[in-house]
Amino acid sequence: MLRRERVKELVEFYRRQLLEDIIPFWLRYSLDQKYGGYLHFLDRDGSVFGTDKAMWMECRETWLFSKLYNTIEPREEWLKASKLGYDFITEHGFDSDGRMFFAVTRDGRPLRKRRYLYTECFGVMACAEYSEATGDKEALKRARETYRLIVDLYRKPESLPPKIIPETRRMKALAMPMMLICISQEIRDIDSDPLYKEVVDEAIGEILNHFMKREMHALLEMVDPNGEPFLEIPEGRLVCPGHDIEVAWFLMHEGIYRKDQKLIDAGLEIIDWALRIGWDKMYGGLYYFVDVMGKPPTRLEWDMKLWWPHTEALYALLLAHHLTGDEKYLIWYEKFHEWTFNHFPDPEYGEWFGYLHRDGTVSTPLKGAMWKGPFHIPRALLQSLKLLEEMVG
Amino acid sequence: MLRRERVKELVEFYRRQLLEDIIPFWLRYSLDQKYGGYLHFLDRDGSVFGTDKAMWMECRETWLFSKLYNTIEPREEWLKASKLGYDFITEHGFDSDGRMFFAVTRDGRPLRKRRYLYTECFGVMACAEYSEATGDKEALKRARETYRLIVDLYRKPESLPPKIIPETRRMKALAMPMMLICISQEIRDIDSDPLYKEVVDEAIGEILNHFMKREMHALLEMVDPNGEPFLEIPEGRLVCPGHDIEVAWFLMHEGIYRKDQKLIDAGLEIIDWALRIGWDKMYGGLYYFVDVMGKPPTRLEWDMKLWWPHTEALYALLLAHHLTGDEKYLIWYEKFHEWTFNHFPDPEYGEWFGYLHRDGTVSTPLKGAMWKGPFHIPRALLQSLKLLEEMVG
Repeated sequence: MLRRERVKELVEFYRRQLLEDIIPFWLRYSLDQKYGGYLHFLDRDGSVFGTDKAMWMECRETWLFSKLYNTIEPREEWLKASKLGYDFITEHGFDSDGRMFFAVTRDGRPLRKRRYLYTECFGVMACAEYSEATGDKEALKRARETYRLIVDLYRKPESLPPKIIPETRRMKALAMPMMLICISQEIRDIDSDPLYKEVVDEAIGEILNHFMKREMHALLEMVDPNGEPFLEIPEGRLVCPGHDIEVAWFLMHEGIYRKDQKLIDAGLEIIDWALRIGWDKMYGGLYYFVDVMGKPPTRLEWDMKLWWPHTEALYALLLAHHLTGDEKYLIWYEKFHEWTFNHFPDPEYGEWFGYLHRDGTVSTPLKGAMWKGPFHIPRALLQSLKLLEEMVG
Repeated sequence: MLRRERVKELVEFYRRQLLEDIIPFWLRYSLDQKYGGYLHFLDRDGSVFGTDKAMWMECRETWLFSKLYNTIEPREEWLKASKLGYDFITEHGFDSDGRMFFAVTRDGRPLRKRRYLYTECFGVMACAEYSEATGDKEALKRARETYRLIVDLYRKPESLPPKIIPETRRMKALAMPMMLICISQEIRDIDSDPLYKEVVDEAIGEILNHFMKREMHALLEMVDPNGEPFLEIPEGRLVCPGHDIEVAWFLMHEGIYRKDQKLIDAGLEIIDWALRIGWDKMYGGLYYFVDVMGKPPTRLEWDMKLWWPHTEALYALLLAHHLTGDEKYLIWYEKFHEWTFNHFPDPEYGEWFGYLHRDGTVSTPLKGAMWKGPFHIPRALLQSLKLLEEMVG
């Protein structure tokens, strides 16, 4: 069991990490007072090294500042920071068809729109959380509409513009049902609609019946629409342990919410698989990608240690221990805690390095780029804090 | 000066590498006798770990076997191997608009077609070289037609299907003029048409006037259509030293062909820049990507050591030394030779590892995948052999 003293120590440590390191870094360096929104290509020292804006990041940071305001305390500074992002998103993030752009220039001109629906998912999170912080009805309406658009397009992908050639092979990605659970859990805290449960039911069904492969002890990244794996190609054998662990705690949250032990058990099983296949026994830390059949990984970054699978694991393991009392999760939790805080934080300029080589040395010192912004670290810290505070009562 | 003894030693060594290691590996493991074409997702021991076929690879391998037949000796085995690829390409590689697919299933059903024209470039090389080996007029016609299609689409990109959103920013890639020089040099050996010189003139103009930035000592990967750099975003500052060195020897070949010292000098200058920015002083070898202003690289594989920049450097440095007599190129050549042959070849199963960590250890042991096939190694060996044999007379 996690000792009371240790819990208190962790609460103290995580609060400092969150409120004295991570959040101040992004507040200081990323707010774009000139054009609105956030600059998120940040060098080690916080200086801007790229001016384009990824809508993922604009949405995630907007979500974060509202979340802090809604859950830690109502600081004006956080609300203002969130509004800076929200206004930029509403002004420049949406195309006329209700879909969102993937990337825009610093002043908001569209650069790229993708067929994937992930940007819209982060849009739902941003708008919903912002509406909760401000009571802004327009923001809630936008969250709802975008949510419906995602669900419609996910259920009927043929309404998206056609691909250049007819589809020879259809594959679906674990990331979509994962994100659908995530955004449904977020929006139903604020809004009620029977659609949310329906979507979560479908997404859970897909994950449990299509992506979870018990005979392989693996949660696959991609399968065909009926859940058949494609084991003859590398993409079909791909496992992302960090993703799996993120899915696991979404399922465990759903299990708690629905009082459904089966979902908690599925989450625990996925965690066990991910640790078995993903933990690097030589250098510690979690591989980014592995091949479920042990074939050579084709993604060049496969053995790198990225920050986010580690923050996801930290929270998921704490939750797993809390729900089961099982010592093994506590041991893993402490192992991840140690590896993570020994390798990722930048002692000189604050915040974390995001991309380490397999051996734990820094590969690129950037603090923010296309895919790294203030999301996984603060979310894991916020959730861990909430859980730890529950533990001490 | 490269001593005569050393030249003979290198000739011997490179011939063995080519004819007793690299070529036998691909002949043994990649020929798909069932569906035609080549299987090129090959594990360390040559076993197939992915069945999809990239048209880049189908075309490059077809080109290679014809090239061997045309330049080393007319072995039936090589011609048959080339025909296996050529037939697969003509049957499954082309769409009805004359453009080519990027990837197909093992049995040739289209998986992906891209806006880029690189597949077609390798198609031209394959068809031209195959027509030279066989005298097949249909193959030459196909090479010519595909060449013209590439040039038309490159000059008028608006004839490609429109992008999802209007273009906010246009950037052009160094790779296209580079490939245009390459395929023009290949096809004009076999066919004559004033278009080839015209295209090379244009491509050289773009490289010298738009991509070469003397004030930065760099050849940029991407600039705007008028050659203006985009220094405020990471893509705009990207340098790929291996690419630069490949461009350099295309320019030097053109300089020799046209008896134009300015082109040779440009190539030498580009090599100097690439070595200065790209050589890893700590572990040796050439970085994959660097930022021209020293900002953090955003490509996760930036500091990995890939096989192909090293084979390109080997040949380019040998050529640079041959053309100038300058000792510095000889020293660099021997340094690359040593690093390359100490790190890439697989002593156990033959062929080369393609992807090493920064420190030279193997990252993934595969021999072939989406982007690795029998092309850069045999081409560099073939060309080096030709040059070395010229040296000994």
